Amino acid sequence: MQSSNSNEVENYEVRKLEISDKSKGFIELLQQLTVCNSVSDQEFRDRFQELSLCGDDHVVCVIEDDHSGKIVATGSVFIEKKFIRNCSKVGHIEDVVVDSNARGLQLGKKVVTYLTDHAHSMGCYKVILDCSVDNREFYEKCGFKQKELQMAKYFI
Amino acid sequence: MQSSNSNEVENYEVRKLEISDKSKGFIELLQQLTVCNSVSDQEFRDRFQELSLCGDDHVVCVIEDDHSGKIVATGSVFIEKKFIRNCSKVGHIEDVVVDSNARGLQLGKKVVTYLTDHAHSMGCYKVILDCSVDNREFYEKCGFKQKELQMAKYFI
Repeated sequence: MQSSNSNEVENYEVRKLEISDKSKGFIELLQQLTVCNSVSDQEFRDRFQELSLCGDDHVVCVIEDDHSGKIVATGSVFIEKKFIRNCSKVGHIEDVVVDSNARGLQLGKKVVTYLTDHAHSMGCYKVILDCSVDNREFYEKCGFKQKELQMAKYFI
Repeated sequence: MQSSNSNEVENYEVRKLEISDKSKGFIELLQQLTVCNSVSDQEFRDRFQELSLCGDDHVVCVIEDDHSGKIVATGSVFIEKKFIRNCSKVGHIEDVVVDSNARGLQLGKKVVTYLTDHAHSMGCYKVILDCSVDNREFYEKCGFKQKELQMAKYFI
């Protein structure tokens, strides 16, 4: 019989987004992060295919709870190709969210580590993200340091 | 005979990066922004072609001084495809720099406006960028507002 601890590890592995994850609550999870209206199956498939064309340059990862069959954490990273630093690359982490019912299991850290490792393996010289003041401490625990200010201009 | 003012406007139009811009000081201009070691013609061509494959999803723009034939300003924007906000998009502005000898001509604003308009035309719901505290006022004049914190993790 396995210990509760090893069960936890086995039940929460990070993997890439699959097209079947829409029916496992992926969109509902994103709604905990920000505005995310209902997406039709066709819209989801189209966007999934578009991102697939980018291959390893744009990865969306998820954690599925093996017991409930629900997606309980997600995040994405895309690889920007630059001319600076001898034509180097930068990883941009976006849309990290953990289900409010699955907090305290270090799933956020797992997701960020997965995305960071991916950026590193793709030859990026750094990985960056934007976060609220409230989330700064979490990302510091993930090895990030505050650098600049994020500025935004909205069209809607 | 044209006035000095209309000459200024004509001499500083924003256009997309061309492969011949390497010989017009494009890399030397980026060196004013950050670390940018010398790039071989082959490395430049390879990166240029990679970015070209992204089409309108990744645009590098420049301003060439018609008198000197030198690139005096540049910036880039790439379009991130998301699932949030009904599968919306976000424009990311990067690597904006104006030649230190061409300051005061509003070239930075021209570049940022060009990149912002491109993101808008691509259907983005917002455009974002990261900047130092020193550059916040410039971007506020371009219509941006401070939103979040940028966090970074370096691999080198």
